[in-house]
Amino acid sequence: MPKLWDATIDEHRRTVEAAILDAAAAVIAEQGLATVTMSSIAQRAGIGRATLYKYFGDVDAIVTAWHERQVAEHLRQLEQAAATVGDPDERLQVVLRAYAELSGGPHDHGGPPAPGMLVALHGGAHVREALQRLRALIAEVIAAASATGAVRDDFPTAEMADYCLHALAAARVQHSSAARDRLVTLILDGLRPTTGGAPRTAEG
Amino acid sequence: MPKLWDATIDEHRRTVEAAILDAAAAVIAEQGLATVTMSSIAQRAGIGRATLYKYFGDVDAIVTAWHERQVAEHLRQLEQAAATVGDPDERLQVVLRAYAELSGGPHDHGGPPAPGMLVALHGGAHVREALQRLRALIAEVIAAASATGAVRDDFPTAEMADYCLHALAAARVQHSSAARDRLVTLILDGLRPTTGGAPRTAEG
Repeated sequence: MPKLWDATIDEHRRTVEAAILDAAAAVIAEQGLATVTMSSIAQRAGIGRATLYKYFGDVDAIVTAWHERQVAEHLRQLEQAAATVGDPDERLQVVLRAYAELSGGPHDHGGPPAPGMLVALHGGAHVREALQRLRALIAEVIAAASATGAVRDDFPTAEMADYCLHALAAARVQHSSAARDRLVTLILDGLRPTTGGAPRTAEG
Repeated sequence: MPKLWDATIDEHRRTVEAAILDAAAAVIAEQGLATVTMSSIAQRAGIGRATLYKYFGDVDAIVTAWHERQVAEHLRQLEQAAATVGDPDERLQVVLRAYAELSGGPHDHGGPPAPGMLVALHGGAHVREALQRLRALIAEVIAAASATGAVRDDFPTAEMADYCLHALAAARVQHSSAARDRLVTLILDGLRPTTGGAPRTAEG
């Protein structure tokens, strides 16, 4: 087979896959994760069930692929947000706010998911990998802000990144942008250098 | 049956149950959650398998009961820590540090657990309930510190408690007391009032 033919098939495959994941996303948003079926996805994508099975073996495989795409897209957005801001302190604020908004918005899992599924997703290798990249991104942004004096420089960058990542998880339980903004303010204030060299926190 | 007899049976039952949970804790600490069996627990508790089955239907039931006891004990320790300190700011520091240490110490789950089991434990009703009480405790301690001016008073107490609880989860990935101390310092600094009325964080 000529190369061109391969390329066309590949492209077609990717297009159909994307359509299936879009359909799955729509069905999940409407019904929640728990009740998604191969039939409902096929119907929404406008393809036959037999065709769908040529692409994905079961609902779990589709949901995992969809979640991988979501996570990758979110990470791409954060990296892009970081890249567009020159000032290190501002960049830190932009990245933390963007992550808080991504975490806090409707989580796109729709209604209550099957617990096992959600665990499988969030414990998946793609999520672990994305979290590693996210942690590296935040550590990098913190290090840059630390170098300008906007962030304390007496604590390890990696620990400050862990603090940010965990604290940002609170965005999931804050249901307004204003509350998520306040959360980011708390997190940022925690990172600020202690004034006058003396620790702001009294030792108990 | 006379009441006294009932009381004695009850007491005996509680004693045996406690011994079973102690045995389970020892086995889990040695082997990890994944490989615990009814036989190993019975052997360690010094009772027969048949007796063990009169108390608990399976390993999951024992592990859940053991985890409930752990969580209740940790909560009791935190409430006690809070009760022993008069100064609100110091109390906040003591409670946050105590929780960081409880989260960060060897988690007592032993080696890598069966993922499903750990999820079942951490998603269990007893954990949800304990987290609610913990959140209430921290919110109360924050409110008291806020009233004295040690903590900012322009953000909702509940949101600051959520920030603390989520950020404190980072203690799980910090493997030294010094690192957990630094984490608590970051968290506390985030809670401090902004100096001179002007927000410490510039708006990006």
